[in-house]
Amino acid sequence: MGDEMGLMAINSSRFRDDFEALAKIGSTNDGGVHRPTFSEAHRMARTWFLERAYAAGLQAEVDGAGNHSAILRCGPVGGPTLLLGSHLDSVSHGGRFDGALGVLAALEVLRVVQETGLALRFDLEAVDFTDEEGTFSGLLGSSAAAGILTQHELENPRGGRAALLSGLELAGLSESGLLKASRDPSRLAGYLELHIEQGGRLEAEGVDIGIVTGIVGLVSITLTFIGQADHAGTTTIERRRDAAQGACSFTVKARDLLMGEFPGCVANVGSIQFLPGAYNIVPGTAVLSLEFRAPDAERLNRLETALLELARDEAARFDLELHIASKGRHAPTLMNSTIQKAFQKSAEKRGLKHIFMASGAGHDAQAMAFVCPAGMIFVPSIGGASHSPRELTRWTDCNHGANTLLQAVLELGR
Amino acid sequence: MGDEMGLMAINSSRFRDDFEALAKIGSTNDGGVHRPTFSEAHRMARTWFLERAYAAGLQAEVDGAGNHSAILRCGPVGGPTLLLGSHLDSVSHGGRFDGALGVLAALEVLRVVQETGLALRFDLEAVDFTDEEGTFSGLLGSSAAAGILTQHELENPRGGRAALLSGLELAGLSESGLLKASRDPSRLAGYLELHIEQGGRLEAEGVDIGIVTGIVGLVSITLTFIGQADHAGTTTIERRRDAAQGACSFTVKARDLLMGEFPGCVANVGSIQFLPGAYNIVPGTAVLSLEFRAPDAERLNRLETALLELARDEAARFDLELHIASKGRHAPTLMNSTIQKAFQKSAEKRGLKHIFMASGAGHDAQAMAFVCPAGMIFVPSIGGASHSPRELTRWTDCNHGANTLLQAVLELGR
Repeated sequence: MGDEMGLMAINSSRFRDDFEALAKIGSTNDGGVHRPTFSEAHRMARTWFLERAYAAGLQAEVDGAGNHSAILRCGPVGGPTLLLGSHLDSVSHGGRFDGALGVLAALEVLRVVQETGLALRFDLEAVDFTDEEGTFSGLLGSSAAAGILTQHELENPRGGRAALLSGLELAGLSESGLLKASRDPSRLAGYLELHIEQGGRLEAEGVDIGIVTGIVGLVSITLTFIGQADHAGTTTIERRRDAAQGACSFTVKARDLLMGEFPGCVANVGSIQFLPGAYNIVPGTAVLSLEFRAPDAERLNRLETALLELARDEAARFDLELHIASKGRHAPTLMNSTIQKAFQKSAEKRGLKHIFMASGAGHDAQAMAFVCPAGMIFVPSIGGASHSPRELTRWTDCNHGANTLLQAVLELGR
Repeated sequence: MGDEMGLMAINSSRFRDDFEALAKIGSTNDGGVHRPTFSEAHRMARTWFLERAYAAGLQAEVDGAGNHSAILRCGPVGGPTLLLGSHLDSVSHGGRFDGALGVLAALEVLRVVQETGLALRFDLEAVDFTDEEGTFSGLLGSSAAAGILTQHELENPRGGRAALLSGLELAGLSESGLLKASRDPSRLAGYLELHIEQGGRLEAEGVDIGIVTGIVGLVSITLTFIGQADHAGTTTIERRRDAAQGACSFTVKARDLLMGEFPGCVANVGSIQFLPGAYNIVPGTAVLSLEFRAPDAERLNRLETALLELARDEAARFDLELHIASKGRHAPTLMNSTIQKAFQKSAEKRGLKHIFMASGAGHDAQAMAFVCPAGMIFVPSIGGASHSPRELTRWTDCNHGANTLLQAVLELGR
C-alpha cells in the first residue's frame, strides 16, 4: 500500500484495468464513448460500477435520484460521510475521461482505505451522480442529493419534458423520488471530486494538479433579432432590415468585448438560426444562442450588462427589434478553503507541481457546495480536448490525481 | 375596345374579376396565396386558367413540361407565335400578384385581340410556365420550353430529387416529357412578360412602368468554415478555432464590400448553420448560404472574386479551413432591344411615365431569351414587398401594365 515516497498509494494497475474495462462500455470507433444518460451503455456502466463495488466487499446503494454509490464504513457509527465522486454519463460521442476518471479514482480510494483497515473520522462514499452532462437536466443527481432540485426544473428540462419522463421510466426512477433524494447536510463531511481539466492550461504550464478555487458562474440567453424578410435580388442593401447583420455583428463584437475588457471570462455563440433561411431571402429573423461565464458574481453581472447593451446597439444599428429570453443561470461557486488546503498539502507531500485555478466548466461539486464543504482537483487534458473522442490524460497524471485525492482524504479524515 | 385615348384597351373589370377569382385559389388568411408548384391549389389554379381560356373560345394546351397555354390563332397559317406569360405557382405563403398578374394580363390581351378580330403577323399564346419559383427547380417550365433544361438539373434540383419525382408523378408529368418540351425557335416570334417589380424603386420615383433592360446574373455558393469544436467554458477565447467568428465576420464585411465597391449589385447570407450547435460548445463548423447578383458578367465575376477573397481572408484570420461549393449560376441576360423600344413607344402613347431598369429577380424571360427575343415590363410594388402576403400593386398600375403589354403586342404584330 505504500509507494516509493513512503506514502499510502492507490493500486495503479487495478485503477487502470478498471478504466480500460469501463471505457469499453459504450465505446465508439474513434476511441471515445457514447453514454448519454439512461442509454443502454450508461445503464450498463452503472451496473458494472456496482458490481466492482460488490466485488471489493463495499456496500452498494442507489438513491431516489438514481445516484449509484459504493460505501465504506470506516468512520464512527452514526458519524458523517465524505463523498467522493463524479459521473459515468457522457455527452453524445464524448471521451473516456470526463466523469469516469473521477468515479474510478473514488472507488480506488475506498478500496485502498479498506485494505489498510484505516479508521477515519467519516465513512467514505464513492458516488456516480445522475446526468451531470445534462442529457435531460444538467447536474440532475447532485442537485437532487443537495436538495436544490425544484419541480420547476423538472418541468423545464433542457432536453425537453417528454424525454425526461421517458428516461426516468426507463431507469425506474420517478419525479417524486428525485425530489426526495436530498441528503441530510448534517451527515455530510464534504464532497471531493477529481476531474480532467477540459482545458489546456495545466499541460501548457507543465503543472500536475490544478486545485479548483471556484466554479465559474454561467448565464444562457437566447437573443432574437427581428427585421424583415425580403427578396434578396430586388431589395437594395440600403433598404434591408437584415436580421443576419445584427446577429453576426453582435457575434464578432462580443468576441472583441471579451478579449478587451473581460480577461478570465468567456462567451460563446453556439448556434444561430436565420428565418426563413433561404439563399434568396433576406433573413427576417435571427435566433442566437449565447452563453457566457465569469469567475465571480460581480464580473458575471458586469459582463451580462455589457453583452446585452451590445446586442441592443447592434439591433438599433440595423433597425431590428431585439427579444431577450433567459435560458438558465448558475451563480459562481467557491470551493471550500479547508479542502483546497488539504489538496495543496497532499500535492506538496507527493512532490506534485500544482496551481490554484477557477473551473470554467460546471461540475457536480457546484451543486454539492450548497450543502457541504466541496472541493475539486484537475489533472491535465492533452491539447485541452474535452467532450470529444480526442479527450486524453496521460496515465501518470491519472495516478497523480488519484493519489492526491487519496492523500486529501487522509489529511481530512485523520 | 377603345379607351379615352382612342387606343385599344383591355377590359379592366373582366381583368380584375379574373384576378380576384384566381386570388381565392390557395388564399391564406393574411391576404396572400399559398400555391407551391403541384400543390392542390396550384393545380386548381392551372385548371381554372384553362377553363377561362375555353370560356373565351381560345385553344387550350398543356405541353410536356406541364406549361399551360391559351392560344389565339391571329397570325398567318404556319407563322410564328408570340408568347406572353408568367406563372401561377407561388412561393410558400407568397403574394397574389407575383406571376399571376402576368398570366392574367396575357390572357386578357388575347381576349381583346380576339374580340377585335385583328390579324397580326403572329399567333398569340398566353402561357403559365411550370415552377418558376423553384419549389422543385427554378424556371423549370420555361427552361424546358427553351430547350436549356438538362438531365443534370433534373438530377440535382434545389428541392431534392425525391420531391421532384413525386411532384412530377402527381402532375402526370415525366422527365422525358420535360426534356422533349422544347419549342422550335424558328416558330417563336418572341416572349413578353408583365410582372410586379418586387422592389420599391418605381413607387419611390413615381414611375408607372419599368422597362427591363436585363436580368441580373446570380451565383449561389455554400461556404463552409471549419475550425474545432471545444468546450465553451474551459477553452479561452484566444485558444479557440471558432467557426462562428469566420462566418459572422464574413457576413458583416461582405455587406461593407457591397455597399462600398459594388453599387447596383446585391449579396445575401440567407442561412448559417453552426455545428454541433449547442450553447456550451464552440462551433467547429459553420455552413453559410451565400447568394450574390450583378447586372453584367464583368461585375458578377469581379464580385465573386472579391467575396471569395474575403472568405479566405476571414478563414485565415481565425485559423479556419474554408470549403467552397458552387450551388448554381445564372448568367446576366439582356432583354431584346426591339421589344424594349416597343414597350417604350407603348408607354409613351399611353402617357405613362417609364424608366429603363435592370431586374434583380430571376424570371422566365431569362430562360426564353436563350431562344427568342424576350422582353419584360414591371409595375410598381407598394413598399417593394414581394414573396410575401404584403405584396400589393395598385389596380391602376395593373391596368397600365396590361395596356402597355397589349400596345406592345400591337406595335410588334402589325
